Amino acid sequence: MTLTLEEMQRRDAADPFAALRDAFDLPPGETYLDGNSLGALPHATAARLAATVREEWGKGLIRSWNKADWIGAPARLGGKIARIIGAAPHEVLVADSTSVNLYKLLVAAVQAQSGRRVILSEPGNFPTDLYVAQGVAATLPDCELRTVPRDRIIDAIDESVAVVMLTHVHYQSGARFDMDTVTRAAQAKGALILWDLSHSAGAVPVDLNAANADLAVGCGYKYLNGGPGAPAFLFVAERHQAVLRSPLSGWMGHAAPFEFSDEYAPGDGIRRFLCGTPPILGIAALEEGIDLFLSVDRPALFAKGQALCSAFIDLVEDRCAGLGLGLLTTRDAAVRGSHVSLRHANAWPVMQALIARGVIGDFRAPDALRFGFTPLYTSYCDVWHAVDMLHDILASGSWDQPDFHVRAAVT
Amino acid sequence: MTLTLEEMQRRDAADPFAALRDAFDLPPGETYLDGNSLGALPHATAARLAATVREEWGKGLIRSWNKADWIGAPARLGGKIARIIGAAPHEVLVADSTSVNLYKLLVAAVQAQSGRRVILSEPGNFPTDLYVAQGVAATLPDCELRTVPRDRIIDAIDESVAVVMLTHVHYQSGARFDMDTVTRAAQAKGALILWDLSHSAGAVPVDLNAANADLAVGCGYKYLNGGPGAPAFLFVAERHQAVLRSPLSGWMGHAAPFEFSDEYAPGDGIRRFLCGTPPILGIAALEEGIDLFLSVDRPALFAKGQALCSAFIDLVEDRCAGLGLGLLTTRDAAVRGSHVSLRHANAWPVMQALIARGVIGDFRAPDALRFGFTPLYTSYCDVWHAVDMLHDILASGSWDQPDFHVRAAVT
Repeated sequence: MTLTLEEMQRRDAADPFAALRDAFDLPPGETYLDGNSLGALPHATAARLAATVREEWGKGLIRSWNKADWIGAPARLGGKIARIIGAAPHEVLVADSTSVNLYKLLVAAVQAQSGRRVILSEPGNFPTDLYVAQGVAATLPDCELRTVPRDRIIDAIDESVAVVMLTHVHYQSGARFDMDTVTRAAQAKGALILWDLSHSAGAVPVDLNAANADLAVGCGYKYLNGGPGAPAFLFVAERHQAVLRSPLSGWMGHAAPFEFSDEYAPGDGIRRFLCGTPPILGIAALEEGIDLFLSVDRPALFAKGQALCSAFIDLVEDRCAGLGLGLLTTRDAAVRGSHVSLRHANAWPVMQALIARGVIGDFRAPDALRFGFTPLYTSYCDVWHAVDMLHDILASGSWDQPDFHVRAAVT
Repeated sequence: MTLTLEEMQRRDAADPFAALRDAFDLPPGETYLDGNSLGALPHATAARLAATVREEWGKGLIRSWNKADWIGAPARLGGKIARIIGAAPHEVLVADSTSVNLYKLLVAAVQAQSGRRVILSEPGNFPTDLYVAQGVAATLPDCELRTVPRDRIIDAIDESVAVVMLTHVHYQSGARFDMDTVTRAAQAKGALILWDLSHSAGAVPVDLNAANADLAVGCGYKYLNGGPGAPAFLFVAERHQAVLRSPLSGWMGHAAPFEFSDEYAPGDGIRRFLCGTPPILGIAALEEGIDLFLSVDRPALFAKGQALCSAFIDLVEDRCAGLGLGLLTTRDAAVRGSHVSLRHANAWPVMQALIARGVIGDFRAPDALRFGFTPLYTSYCDVWHAVDMLHDILASGSWDQPDFHVRAAVT
């Protein structure tokens, strides 16, 4: 079927999630397709933050650690995220950044795997994953990061591998690993698996416990709509919690932080993976983002995300044929995330031209135009409009203006 | 001179900083003496956060990384904190938590000191400092945390010591190290010095470069009034920046984070000590707290803090004699911070009774009543009132009620 604007309008009218768009404060006249990089602002978040600031901090002051349960927030939010990623509530914690959490879990995993010193990953993984693994390798004796292309990962798992660290949905191509198969393959060879869910949580179905995953981390500011630099999360399967030790043994992970003893004793369960004082303002914002997911039919929501991606690909192929675009993302919805990347020789200025016309995606080096389809607030007409603008810009060559070639600090 | 309420009123009337109290949103009818644990809310912070949320995040969305200079915020705030702690602007960075920053700098310091593997500190240092050092010792080969009492620290620095890690102002006793002397002693033996400024920054004069300090960390949510769980800061003297390597080599510390290369290359200067994506909401709040310090006469402000502490001690000794209190903090203003701790056998219920009557200090295990005097918003009459209540509660024995003996999660 050739997609038309009318068909997209019909789909929006039939979309059971259409009303959720009104829960977000989207800039009028713009089409925001970058929720995979920074999720949009839920209306409720501004009010929640104002209350957290004025009531809890301003009036409650230090008492809010108990009375507003600030102290319990990392575990409370973890329990909520657990429902979105197929974990038990006591297996997930909100803390620190994705990078810091990766470091904690990688060091803990390598140290627990006696005789195994290799962290196995793929080249082109999200940079911070590789960088953090390199930092771990520079810290632990004889530890090594080894990368092999994604289609050879399973074959490369041998008795030297302590932990396989993979990003479930690739940040650029959107390719999604088969979590069950790779987890099983890693464990069959005695390795642990660590999944980075940064582009998965809130975007695609994830069931860590069905896959028997060992470890995971993920991001709060993308599909979970937690705000810029929101706290991240980590998952440690219950069976590993008593054994693994975080190298970042800060006071909030202590068994009794307010006894102020000199000797570190890790807390029970997931709590030992806390480090410093939790960032309460960021946590308050993140909780509003997470809560939006808890009351919806998540499998149906994620299916809508895939339908948006498929419609985008179909429309691009139909309307932008011969305009220099290549598809970096698979057409198979079962093995991709909720974003689509297109290759173009002038991807940077083309994206700037799109943004200037109110269609906001992003550029990923060296040559990708990336578009995120966040089913909570993206409509089918958004998809139509984005492809319409992309066609106009490419067909007219209007992207080739000096302003659009200027590179910014953050791309 | 015996202090009277009239004398305290006279001092408030003559206080050039008295008007600054109006910059804070203090709960009416309460006397807040816990700004050393969680600083009060500046009025400007609520408005700033609302703008950051609604305008920068809500409307600007992903563009705010460039347009609102979110990407430059860690260095911008670092440059401001630098003025408060005697550093150059390019030597300080806002990032992560104090605990995480301690880990970064301790690992970097030990790794840079070939042949030296000891982290030297004092027993009873703030717990997270010792816990993090224990985590470093569990990560790096042959690394060891050694603690000796504070009066023997200098003698204990030998050729095995890689780094001396001390808290400038002790979290409980308020005792302040002589930064110049200890720094010189450490360096004379080839050790690096790392100062934890959590109870110093915004409380007492600090001049890291005058002391020729090597490394420092500090907290954003105490005297800097950055809000609960505010981001922390770190200092690396310029001469060390090219050599030290953070083990937490996340993408924000990369020389070119948006080139998305597979190999970590540390950024120039202080930036290499960034790790993950900066927490923008926490940073926005912290910036308002810091800005309040930049326009005032800081030496005079810190002198007021000392005058408040001295008045508190004098009044306690005058009015609460024979009521079971002991002084944990020195009477010598030159070698203490801006808080005072008193020992009492029933410190916990006594503090709960004080809080119930609107005088908010805190308890520190095992037996300390702790009172912070934050010269931006504490008045001399606050001091009078606190001692007045303390006297009433102790003299009447009204602290000995069942409710006041109940222990909370956070103490």
